[in-house]
Amino acid sequence: MINRRIVLAARPQGHAGLEHFRLERTELPPLAPGQVLVRHHYLSLDPYMRTRMDAAKSYAPAVEVGEPMVGRTVGEIVESRHDRYSAGELVADMGGWQEYAVVDATVKGALNRLDTARVPLSAWLGPAGMPGITAWIGLHKFIEPKAGETIVVDAASGAVGSIVGQLVKAAGCRAVGLAGGAAKCAHVREELGFDACIDYKAHRDFASLAAALDAAAPIGVDGCFENVGGLIFDVVLSRMNAFGRIALCGMISGYDQPAAPIANPKLLLTQRLRLQGFIVSEHPELWGRARDELADGIASGRIRYRESIAQGIENAPAAFLGMLAGANFGKQLVKLI
Amino acid sequence: MINRRIVLAARPQGHAGLEHFRLERTELPPLAPGQVLVRHHYLSLDPYMRTRMDAAKSYAPAVEVGEPMVGRTVGEIVESRHDRYSAGELVADMGGWQEYAVVDATVKGALNRLDTARVPLSAWLGPAGMPGITAWIGLHKFIEPKAGETIVVDAASGAVGSIVGQLVKAAGCRAVGLAGGAAKCAHVREELGFDACIDYKAHRDFASLAAALDAAAPIGVDGCFENVGGLIFDVVLSRMNAFGRIALCGMISGYDQPAAPIANPKLLLTQRLRLQGFIVSEHPELWGRARDELADGIASGRIRYRESIAQGIENAPAAFLGMLAGANFGKQLVKLI
Repeated sequence: MINRRIVLAARPQGHAGLEHFRLERTELPPLAPGQVLVRHHYLSLDPYMRTRMDAAKSYAPAVEVGEPMVGRTVGEIVESRHDRYSAGELVADMGGWQEYAVVDATVKGALNRLDTARVPLSAWLGPAGMPGITAWIGLHKFIEPKAGETIVVDAASGAVGSIVGQLVKAAGCRAVGLAGGAAKCAHVREELGFDACIDYKAHRDFASLAAALDAAAPIGVDGCFENVGGLIFDVVLSRMNAFGRIALCGMISGYDQPAAPIANPKLLLTQRLRLQGFIVSEHPELWGRARDELADGIASGRIRYRESIAQGIENAPAAFLGMLAGANFGKQLVKLI
Repeated sequence: MINRRIVLAARPQGHAGLEHFRLERTELPPLAPGQVLVRHHYLSLDPYMRTRMDAAKSYAPAVEVGEPMVGRTVGEIVESRHDRYSAGELVADMGGWQEYAVVDATVKGALNRLDTARVPLSAWLGPAGMPGITAWIGLHKFIEPKAGETIVVDAASGAVGSIVGQLVKAAGCRAVGLAGGAAKCAHVREELGFDACIDYKAHRDFASLAAALDAAAPIGVDGCFENVGGLIFDVVLSRMNAFGRIALCGMISGYDQPAAPIANPKLLLTQRLRLQGFIVSEHPELWGRARDELADGIASGRIRYRESIAQGIENAPAAFLGMLAGANFGKQLVKLI
């Protein structure tokens, strides 16, 4: 059986482009005992994947040149040589950018069965999956919102930010988003229920963006869920109230080019701020609670989400690069069947 | 009775200089009921005072032009109109840069009686006072050292840093200091017992300073007690291990000029670091325990310290400016009698 996959063709020096990816066709090997074969329905595309293309030290090993890109996937077991798994079951796995994956089912956590009666299959890669859980942990463990506070999240229409804002509202706080363009901002306010959303593309310098934030957050900012970095972070930092908390989840502005410096770090001291960098996989003790709450919210319709879906593994690189540039609208997926 | 004091003559635009201070002679008013008159023996000079000279938003109000500079003092009550205080008692107060202060003793915390049987009077402004307690709280509350870890502190021969390193050693950790010049570094290693001390003046660029830190902290840095900011912080940040903690206590490099940016903030994310800005006065619940432990250490000789003492209130501005430039060696005081 033929498997199609995307491998890292070369490491980017600066901006990533299509030339750094290559489509390959490989023959799937026969299963060994304990293995299962998963046919992927959806591949999740996430900003962190850009950091894996570099050789630089990060929290996870780099993808080797010639190896498939890493990524979270959901799909159906089509063949099993493990007693506890059967063909036809729907599962999530770290299958990578490919149509099929051979998974060693004896490894704890390698496969997770999915309940698709209440939550659609694709949502297990978005609001009920890693992005939603990232939002939940960043907000509840690190920002610790108190009712009445103002919490700012950038990339607010994205897979993580969109959930952050809805959880902020549920916590009784003011949710202020930043997103690129009027359409995304309208979605953030009207569909997701944020109190305000700033179109950062309409505010290209510090003074302009700061004035917009002052209007959206008139009593200052108590919590910041940071996905972007750069100018946006500098502006939010300048408006933080004393004892504010910053959950540093991503710095997408610095993934494809040198990370912009923090211009005025003295504010971290004078405002007695707490900043915590985190990655969701290191807080497994909270996954069960977060996933249950998110799945309940999705099933009941309280949590809303939007997906951008590319079709076919061959289109994964373009969809990924588009996402890095902000072209997606909600969770970016690739449909593989 | 005549009181001599130093007032803020003008706000600095950039570097502070002698022209921003003025010596005044004033007549002390008669005491009102509830007041006591304290004759100061020592004035503490501390880096935070530079931030109070600016009008910019900070955690404490600016000193007004024409008003005395703020500061912690120790001295003797020479006259009292409060039942609970008597002439001859030794006390600490926020008396400011002046020879005498009229203190409203009815205000809780305005006066603290001092035990000078075990701890010398001046030490209540240094290792047993605000600087020592700052060291204790920053280390134990925010860095939370675990035995075997490596903790870095800059301004290591200063009033705060010198105590940080000794507490780091007591916690079973490796203490690495940075200080300016061979004499200070020798003191930090030989008198204070740090495992290593880097002369930052001998390493003027990132690569050179980083190589020195690699030698001093061969398995990386788990905790950083930050007093300086700028290049030193950028280098320490680049050597932080995963899950490291940064207690942001000061950014003296940015007090007298624009604060240097954090060059590579992405490290805060990729290393999942926690950074906490703090000021000691906001953690009163820990003062008692910290002060008791520090006083015990001083009385027993386990905690060592050094003082730089200027003579006379008229020399306070020069001593203060020297301290900002690193000319002091240990706790900077002004002796006023």
